[in-house]
Amino acid sequence: MPFDFGPLFPAGTPAPAMRWTGSPKYNFTGGNNDPDAVPLEGLMQAAQSVMAREGRTLATYGLNSGPQGYRPLREFLATKLKRDAGMACTADDLLIVSGSLQALDLVNSALLTRGDTVIVEQDNYQGTLTRLAKLGVNAVGIPLDSGGMRMDVLKAALAELLTRGIQPKYIYTIPTVQNPTGTILDEERRAQMLTLADQYSVPIFEDDCYADLVWSGERPRSLYAMTKSDNVIHIGSFSKSIAPALRVGFIAAPWDVMSRMLALKTDAGSGALEQMVLAEYCAPHFADHVPALRAGLRKKLETLMESLNEQFGTAAEFDDPKGGIFLWVKLPDNVDSLRLYQAALKEGVAINPGPEWSTDRAHSINRMRLCFASPTHDQIREGIAILAEVCRKEFGVPARSGNVELGEENGER
Amino acid sequence: MPFDFGPLFPAGTPAPAMRWTGSPKYNFTGGNNDPDAVPLEGLMQAAQSVMAREGRTLATYGLNSGPQGYRPLREFLATKLKRDAGMACTADDLLIVSGSLQALDLVNSALLTRGDTVIVEQDNYQGTLTRLAKLGVNAVGIPLDSGGMRMDVLKAALAELLTRGIQPKYIYTIPTVQNPTGTILDEERRAQMLTLADQYSVPIFEDDCYADLVWSGERPRSLYAMTKSDNVIHIGSFSKSIAPALRVGFIAAPWDVMSRMLALKTDAGSGALEQMVLAEYCAPHFADHVPALRAGLRKKLETLMESLNEQFGTAAEFDDPKGGIFLWVKLPDNVDSLRLYQAALKEGVAINPGPEWSTDRAHSINRMRLCFASPTHDQIREGIAILAEVCRKEFGVPARSGNVELGEENGER
Repeated sequence: MPFDFGPLFPAGTPAPAMRWTGSPKYNFTGGNNDPDAVPLEGLMQAAQSVMAREGRTLATYGLNSGPQGYRPLREFLATKLKRDAGMACTADDLLIVSGSLQALDLVNSALLTRGDTVIVEQDNYQGTLTRLAKLGVNAVGIPLDSGGMRMDVLKAALAELLTRGIQPKYIYTIPTVQNPTGTILDEERRAQMLTLADQYSVPIFEDDCYADLVWSGERPRSLYAMTKSDNVIHIGSFSKSIAPALRVGFIAAPWDVMSRMLALKTDAGSGALEQMVLAEYCAPHFADHVPALRAGLRKKLETLMESLNEQFGTAAEFDDPKGGIFLWVKLPDNVDSLRLYQAALKEGVAINPGPEWSTDRAHSINRMRLCFASPTHDQIREGIAILAEVCRKEFGVPARSGNVELGEENGER
Repeated sequence: MPFDFGPLFPAGTPAPAMRWTGSPKYNFTGGNNDPDAVPLEGLMQAAQSVMAREGRTLATYGLNSGPQGYRPLREFLATKLKRDAGMACTADDLLIVSGSLQALDLVNSALLTRGDTVIVEQDNYQGTLTRLAKLGVNAVGIPLDSGGMRMDVLKAALAELLTRGIQPKYIYTIPTVQNPTGTILDEERRAQMLTLADQYSVPIFEDDCYADLVWSGERPRSLYAMTKSDNVIHIGSFSKSIAPALRVGFIAAPWDVMSRMLALKTDAGSGALEQMVLAEYCAPHFADHVPALRAGLRKKLETLMESLNEQFGTAAEFDDPKGGIFLWVKLPDNVDSLRLYQAALKEGVAINPGPEWSTDRAHSINRMRLCFASPTHDQIREGIAILAEVCRKEFGVPARSGNVELGEENGER
């Protein structure tokens, strides 16, 4: 008789996973990238040259660079972060991690304990929200407008928490191409946030993992760059700029926090081959690669917005995001995006239902996140047509005639 | 004024790390491998062919293989585990992880909670012991003899725990080239362990990460292969057989446990490039590569044992291990290996002091682990000479004349 592991599992562990049965045909979920935009030849050349030169160091944990990660990659990052985000960090201030998800885990492990409170943007990255929930941490959501997190609400929330004797452990923000809203916090709001952070002695946790994908190529200085009190932990990733499957991210942080994260990073280093290949490729090619990537993504976004206008008419409301790989779409009030998700999945269309991407269910129940980097232009068109059909069947919207009559009003808001 | 993160760190977090200042000159610690044995040309060819064929899948998290990892690597492993360890698992029973350290974390997260008890070999891998301590789990150490974990003591310990109403969550064992003792549990003892596991309803957690490095090339069937009740979780790694910096390991487990580990593996997949390169290289080359690697390691072990005999004479007692990358050495009773470690480090020689590798301080205080794969033959000779000198200064042993007079008795036990 097979052994029964059931009685051994501790209470409160997450529900078991289902067996993977392949990807949906029309996949508008996940931060996947455009396969055609992977700089494959460059990566292959980089792999050859770096392995030929330094491959024997693979015999040593951490190569010859110590626990903070492959030094040439940290040096590339220091140069890039100075150029793009105005940051003055050096290789010694950087820790290479296994994707920005490990960055989230390390920052959370270093700072949080059950019962803590943190401040986050109300509409938010699902992986952040589920991590906080699992840790038993209370996430106070601050609403966003077209300029990102609202500073008036942040100020009020900080004041209100203070009156209740609650010291938030950090303000988590994705200021540059916010997930899922695509908004960018301008330097004025960044300065306001930093002032509030100083005033209330709350550090800022800045997640900049989409920051390379601003269409204009210009982004505000990072909060890490702007602070005068060294109170910002900054994380980023190569998942959006090179390839997500590589699992390489980084953390820039004051040594006081860095040294504690290093003590918690008990994985004997992140994957070395990927760090080596990235460093070798990025130092000469990153600055040329990213604009080409962005141009392709922008075209896919336009296809997505056109398809939504054609198929949903005014039933789908959205702002034209300033960069990124996703669109945050508001549907009519009677649409339950969780039900829409289930129904669409049966037809081969995967979407992210709003409540999984927000601290506020009422606000998000009729919203959905659509990722556009991975599907082809044809898949975007076909998938959105099917999604509209499913939505119509389930909720009566969009009205069948709406496509034509109302489509034009709805472009690029 | 810089922000003070101090008040934000939760109680009980580990002490901050020190800044890395480079590797010691004579490094007998860490599971590093022989740089000359990295199959570099093969890995480079594999990188080119797999990237040319499938590189665009890097744009997708998990490639096209889902959350259990790159399917061709799982298929190679299924074939290898059947051939080498008699295991009947398929690719669906395997999960690729970021080194066997992530395997330890996932198994522990799925099964353990604070206050639990587990059974382990008394002399043990430091990373296992520190993980258990951090989780607040009580590790009951079972002594080993030259045949590995003693089954009479295991039986008594299980009986004794039962009388106290304690249900151990697992029996953790490194049965094939045990760390640090280098012992191998034969099939008879494995069968006894499985019988006890059934009798006391305790699953077995089998860590086989050194199993490719048995000098003879022949190893007993794994516990996973031998069980009739599907009560074994088996983990392994490519760190010892290919290169540690790659950070690729695996877990074979019943679906009931696998599905829970998948739910806990929230890292969006392990490094894809490394999985791809390993699969491409290993399928045709692994079986030829490993014997060559072992031959080189065996030679280094012989240099180490000769050096110990020359420099320490009878003051250093050890068994000739049946495989692996480390030697577990007993020094005279008056030697405190923690003090020896400190003193030797000042002279550029790094060793693993016994108490960090054992549940029993009294048993291990005069023992040390010496890893021999990474240093050159010359470094081994020079490093052991310096170590003997330091030991003599600190503890009066080995006696200066001992090298010559007593050396010969001490070979290869």
